[in-house]
Amino acid sequence: MSEMNKTWVLRQRPVGEIKEGDLELVETPLEPLQEGQVRAKTVYLSLDPTNRIWMSDMDAYLPPVGIGDGMRGGGLAMVVESRHEGFQQGDIVNTGLGKWTMYPVLNGDGLAKLPRLPGVPLTAFMGPLGATGMTAYFGLMDIGKPKAGETVVVSAAAGAVGSMVGQIAKIQGCRVVGIAGSDDKCRWLTEVAGFDAAINYKSEDVGAALDRHCPNGVDINFENVGGKIMEAVIDRLNDFSRMPLCGMISTYNDTTPAPGPSNFANFLMRRTLVKGFIVIDYFPRFPEGIQQMAQWLMEGKLKFETDIVKGFENAPASLSRLFEGKNLGKLVVECSPPPE
Amino acid sequence: MSEMNKTWVLRQRPVGEIKEGDLELVETPLEPLQEGQVRAKTVYLSLDPTNRIWMSDMDAYLPPVGIGDGMRGGGLAMVVESRHEGFQQGDIVNTGLGKWTMYPVLNGDGLAKLPRLPGVPLTAFMGPLGATGMTAYFGLMDIGKPKAGETVVVSAAAGAVGSMVGQIAKIQGCRVVGIAGSDDKCRWLTEVAGFDAAINYKSEDVGAALDRHCPNGVDINFENVGGKIMEAVIDRLNDFSRMPLCGMISTYNDTTPAPGPSNFANFLMRRTLVKGFIVIDYFPRFPEGIQQMAQWLMEGKLKFETDIVKGFENAPASLSRLFEGKNLGKLVVECSPPPE
Repeated sequence: MSEMNKTWVLRQRPVGEIKEGDLELVETPLEPLQEGQVRAKTVYLSLDPTNRIWMSDMDAYLPPVGIGDGMRGGGLAMVVESRHEGFQQGDIVNTGLGKWTMYPVLNGDGLAKLPRLPGVPLTAFMGPLGATGMTAYFGLMDIGKPKAGETVVVSAAAGAVGSMVGQIAKIQGCRVVGIAGSDDKCRWLTEVAGFDAAINYKSEDVGAALDRHCPNGVDINFENVGGKIMEAVIDRLNDFSRMPLCGMISTYNDTTPAPGPSNFANFLMRRTLVKGFIVIDYFPRFPEGIQQMAQWLMEGKLKFETDIVKGFENAPASLSRLFEGKNLGKLVVECSPPPE
Repeated sequence: MSEMNKTWVLRQRPVGEIKEGDLELVETPLEPLQEGQVRAKTVYLSLDPTNRIWMSDMDAYLPPVGIGDGMRGGGLAMVVESRHEGFQQGDIVNTGLGKWTMYPVLNGDGLAKLPRLPGVPLTAFMGPLGATGMTAYFGLMDIGKPKAGETVVVSAAAGAVGSMVGQIAKIQGCRVVGIAGSDDKCRWLTEVAGFDAAINYKSEDVGAALDRHCPNGVDINFENVGGKIMEAVIDRLNDFSRMPLCGMISTYNDTTPAPGPSNFANFLMRRTLVKGFIVIDYFPRFPEGIQQMAQWLMEGKLKFETDIVKGFENAPASLSRLFEGKNLGKLVVECSPPPE
């Protein structure tokens, strides 16, 4: 093979938003495979808010990416060369917690080969059947424990996680209110995804809108954002409410710690359960979650969108779409043509 | 009967600390008893941080005491007159969520008559066997779920709740670190109550002291205080830590909302479970808690102190002892002589 590999390498920790020079695209020759390995070509790279966490040296749930190391990330790739009997050219595999690299070399043992599901596009494995889908499923079902008739609020509702949370909650018989950042997103939530109501936090008073759309208060707040939006929801929590704490994207670019919610004492008065979680903790239960989500998908009960940016070289710059709220659904980078 | 009853009545909602004039001592004649009622004479009145919450019109777990109504509170009283076959003069009863009144009139049906336990003084029913003991027991056991070898931190550690939390955690085989406000209290915690370490937050850097006394981080933070002390503990939480949220006494006199913990995102990174609770939610399980605590008491495994102020007329002024951290153990007002 004469082609070179390309990898995005972390050169320095971003201060605030990611800037040019924080990551560098490095070319290296393709190394020969060892017995048991496969070489794959990245099809989709997953862009997630947590990428930004991994670039910081904040105290997080995984060690940060080292300076000089390949950027950490997940994705789907197509096998181009195999020295493992379980894989052949053209197989689609999940690269797991891999790197931002065009030609990952993977150990065949334990590597997940993706099935083809009737009527389900490959991008579903980046969304509802991928890490974001599992985040929504386990965060809502295992921590939120929704009961029919309850009111569920979800922030970043048009994102990959939020859009699934709301639809799963609808399947459970809940009233679902989403908070998102544009009228287009809000329209998608109510008209396509079946949410009962959606609030555009950029143009509406979130508190007043919550009062209007949640006449019986809030039983579950699936928290993706933090900051003032979270505070408005906390003000309206019911007794014995639950708050799966999934993300705080509003704070990841902060250079100084933001104040916590001034209504923190509400967790006491309302006997709220707040539980932080990271989807990797649920890895052993992924088969259960994927099976359920795949069934709902095939029954047409889950709508999903994929926000596709083309070109591996555009990965770092495209991350800002998440923080600027530009994506509808799962943000991915298409690095090479997907199979038919 | 020619004696008059006395009741502390709420005249206005305190702004900040309780001041003279917020409550008024009102005398009323003793009314004749109805069939099935008993009249008791208050022996001990319970003073608790939550009294201050009930005087505010903040959104709390119970409606506030109405202006013009008798102040809400619990206590023990001795039956002086009975028109219920289950009670006779001299019986000691728990007045439950009653009022600050010298001669409560109580319905005999459902009224709890206290047993006499060998070697256990009556004040135990205001502490380890009362609401504060149940708060400690259920908050720690049901939410904290301590495991042997884990590290438990408790704030307001020399108070009625904190002192029990630490000792129960020791019985469970945990390492226990208490945070309190004087050297005397810290000495009591380590030398009498058996805590592994105690931190005087008024004279020590709490963060540095936690680093020294919790070399393996913090698995359970039993939170009674809020504010900067809570923030210091949150910084040191371990993965999958638990935080029973029992009280936030540092904030109850605030006239404007205090900022929440700036390290709120740590709950996400550490996958912490935070759970607000109020002891009345556990009322149906009190028999279980009292039985276990009574057994430990009789086995000599629980030490407790009672901070006794004399005189019913001193109740309002004595509440400040809680907020100034003057009490060691359970604060009560002795309103009439206890039985031998």
